[in-house]
Amino acid sequence: MSRNKAPHLTPEQFRTRGHQMIDLIADYMSDIESFPVLSQVDAGEIYSSFPVHPPERSESYEKMLQDVKDIIIPGLTHWQSPNFFAYFPSNASGPSILGDMLSSGFGIQGMLWSTSPACTELETLMLDWMVEITGLPEHFHSKNSGGGVIQESASSAALCAAVAGREKALRNGHSEHSQLVGYISNQTHSSAEKSLKIAGFRDHQIRTIEVSSDFSMDPNHLLEMIRTDLSDGKKPAFVCATVGTTSSLAVDPVPQISEITNEFDIWLHVDGAYSGSATVCPEYRHLLNGIENADSYCFNPHKWLLTNFDCDLFYVKKKSDLVDALTFTPEYLRNKATESGQVFDYSGWQVSLGRRFRSLKLWFVIRHYGIEGLRAHIRSHIQYAAQFTQWIKDDDEFELFQKTVLNLVCFRHKEGNAKTRQILETANASGKLFATHTVLNDQYLIRFVPGAVRTEMRHVEEAWKEFKSAAS
Amino acid sequence: MSRNKAPHLTPEQFRTRGHQMIDLIADYMSDIESFPVLSQVDAGEIYSSFPVHPPERSESYEKMLQDVKDIIIPGLTHWQSPNFFAYFPSNASGPSILGDMLSSGFGIQGMLWSTSPACTELETLMLDWMVEITGLPEHFHSKNSGGGVIQESASSAALCAAVAGREKALRNGHSEHSQLVGYISNQTHSSAEKSLKIAGFRDHQIRTIEVSSDFSMDPNHLLEMIRTDLSDGKKPAFVCATVGTTSSLAVDPVPQISEITNEFDIWLHVDGAYSGSATVCPEYRHLLNGIENADSYCFNPHKWLLTNFDCDLFYVKKKSDLVDALTFTPEYLRNKATESGQVFDYSGWQVSLGRRFRSLKLWFVIRHYGIEGLRAHIRSHIQYAAQFTQWIKDDDEFELFQKTVLNLVCFRHKEGNAKTRQILETANASGKLFATHTVLNDQYLIRFVPGAVRTEMRHVEEAWKEFKSAAS
Repeated sequence: MSRNKAPHLTPEQFRTRGHQMIDLIADYMSDIESFPVLSQVDAGEIYSSFPVHPPERSESYEKMLQDVKDIIIPGLTHWQSPNFFAYFPSNASGPSILGDMLSSGFGIQGMLWSTSPACTELETLMLDWMVEITGLPEHFHSKNSGGGVIQESASSAALCAAVAGREKALRNGHSEHSQLVGYISNQTHSSAEKSLKIAGFRDHQIRTIEVSSDFSMDPNHLLEMIRTDLSDGKKPAFVCATVGTTSSLAVDPVPQISEITNEFDIWLHVDGAYSGSATVCPEYRHLLNGIENADSYCFNPHKWLLTNFDCDLFYVKKKSDLVDALTFTPEYLRNKATESGQVFDYSGWQVSLGRRFRSLKLWFVIRHYGIEGLRAHIRSHIQYAAQFTQWIKDDDEFELFQKTVLNLVCFRHKEGNAKTRQILETANASGKLFATHTVLNDQYLIRFVPGAVRTEMRHVEEAWKEFKSAAS
Repeated sequence: MSRNKAPHLTPEQFRTRGHQMIDLIADYMSDIESFPVLSQVDAGEIYSSFPVHPPERSESYEKMLQDVKDIIIPGLTHWQSPNFFAYFPSNASGPSILGDMLSSGFGIQGMLWSTSPACTELETLMLDWMVEITGLPEHFHSKNSGGGVIQESASSAALCAAVAGREKALRNGHSEHSQLVGYISNQTHSSAEKSLKIAGFRDHQIRTIEVSSDFSMDPNHLLEMIRTDLSDGKKPAFVCATVGTTSSLAVDPVPQISEITNEFDIWLHVDGAYSGSATVCPEYRHLLNGIENADSYCFNPHKWLLTNFDCDLFYVKKKSDLVDALTFTPEYLRNKATESGQVFDYSGWQVSLGRRFRSLKLWFVIRHYGIEGLRAHIRSHIQYAAQFTQWIKDDDEFELFQKTVLNLVCFRHKEGNAKTRQILETANASGKLFATHTVLNDQYLIRFVPGAVRTEMRHVEEAWKEFKSAAS
């Protein structure tokens, strides 16, 4: 048996290596435009670049950093590139990286208030600040009936909402789980259906509501389905409405939907994962019309609000609905603070027991940018999308699929699907940009989303030239 | 409408601030013994130290760092203190912090192979390396029927296991969800029951199995309950066995339990969240006897294996069982690599769609420490616990509750519960250490776990003196 000592880093060794790591990250930021945006490696190439067996003995830091440069970086798709226009952005701003470093450095566990009061209370404060910044209803503020918590993602938030809705529907004891029904539209994010299924809803308990011509949920069809289910002895339990669908940023009519869910006492979850960030600007708050009647709401600063993954903000109208569904406190976690009832234990607001100090990064972002800076960030991207839209309108080869919403442009080549797909593949293969596609009404569409932290008008111009060149 | 520009950091501004942040973290590491281990703040104190309203304009970095020192640090319970002996440790080693910084800096999303091949493939390689390092069955290796994935926590892993088990039990179409039954013991971590409930098991579908005198699950009682359920027309679907319970590190008899689960075709999940890390040492591999018959297994390097939260390693014997239960691919995520079937898309192995590049920190840890260093780390803590145990054995005031397992010492004052509780509260209030308690057989016990990265024998000695002094 070896009696070697583990080679822990001293604070001074950590300092030296930390400075080297910061330099590597700062260099990556400087050089990022020199890499092909979409990684060009083949399946299995990264895996087989490394030894099959783990090292017996400590390796040098220099060798590890060299492998990062030689092997890892070529295997990345560069989400932080200003030429990344795919999916939705994943903003990792400087201040959020700094806040996240601090979270890693402290290495605390925020499962209970007592396991680090600052972790719980700063999180509560950030969620309360965001109520003000985005103009949310006062009942989402922690001092009132509701409150907010940071979740890993909109998927986790949807799961917690589905479980809370399920429990609320079963509380009166008149229904069985197998009678419950959940409602989504055919444009709702896959995470909502996945959440319902994880929460035990079977296929026959999930209804897919039709959408109107603008791809938003048709409230008449929702009402009709609910009435049918009720007359069949089912118990409608959960509706997920979306403010900004993934394919086209369609906005489900929350005012009409919430009238229905209120009438039939159904949990309404509003998923604003992407578009919610735009409501830092007063001129986009109308997107959340009707939100005051929702039971829960989430949006992801880790998409478009400068805060690196993971940071989904999840609000509930009534804390007790969530906490009653998700709290289990065994003996070894009991403590005076919890029993006083004066504190929040966020482990009872989420699936996992453990949790990182995630609010630090959001705190750094809000303080560094200020409300003004957050608004300027959002408005810049919307302006780029508006310019790009104008180029398409003025062009004779390409056409818009729909009116541009926020910073998502859906467009196609007039020759149709095959040509459009070929243009996207050619543009992506150039390495100069990365955009993705969707299919709506059987039309293959390029989704172009200028939303990265470092994207400027010049990058959008270059992208437009690239699409034009790929078309010819 | 403001036309201000958002104050994004240039790479050079980030470099300067990053160096300052590294210095703050290195100073925190140096000074950590000077803080009271358990935060002394009152409920609401941190929240009310900050402005009620968010800032309109950008604030200075210096002011933010000052607030970290003046307000946040006093609000922390210092999990990285060498005098932290509470719960289970949450190892944030230097190399893991460096790896996590890189993950934040790259800011990529690993939901699909194509969204950053290095993220998926390095993760696969790390999970395969860990099969070798901890001597797991070959079927957990990615090249065989099974494979592994990094989950947020053992709670998330248990949830995925419960859902996979549920789906397997329902696959033949002969049973309804309401007939399924899940089995835990009264010592199983609360996350297993929570997972079953999230997955839709109602109270009447969860059985709590009795434990033997050593607090391990009684396989005879398990068998009896399963037979009763079968004769009642129920469908046993999921058993969670624990290798190292939270209260006392009891080890459920996986060889006998797995004989039963195999006979009745029930999903067996083995939760090795804490003790699994010890199996890097060949002399503790016997803890996992029988693991070859389990359907899934997890352990947390973010507890005792030098890797900061979140890093739970979750293995399944058959990939398809997990992936079939958790994969939903909408149009906007379709891509050639996925359709080729040659790659893993880890979003289909977990609840959330999005995911961080979490394997980087594990890669840094394994390469920095080497297998030798990982073993030395584990063995040092076990040696400290053995020494502490000897002091108790030689003492006339305190007594052991049970034989010490690994590095968990459960002990009490001979005068009983009230005295033991008072000693723990006095010791914790001193700020010189932090330990927690549990209750077993109605006895209030101090749980003492020397497992922090920087804990040395001298800290364990000081803790012993502190308990002695609190007792007098």
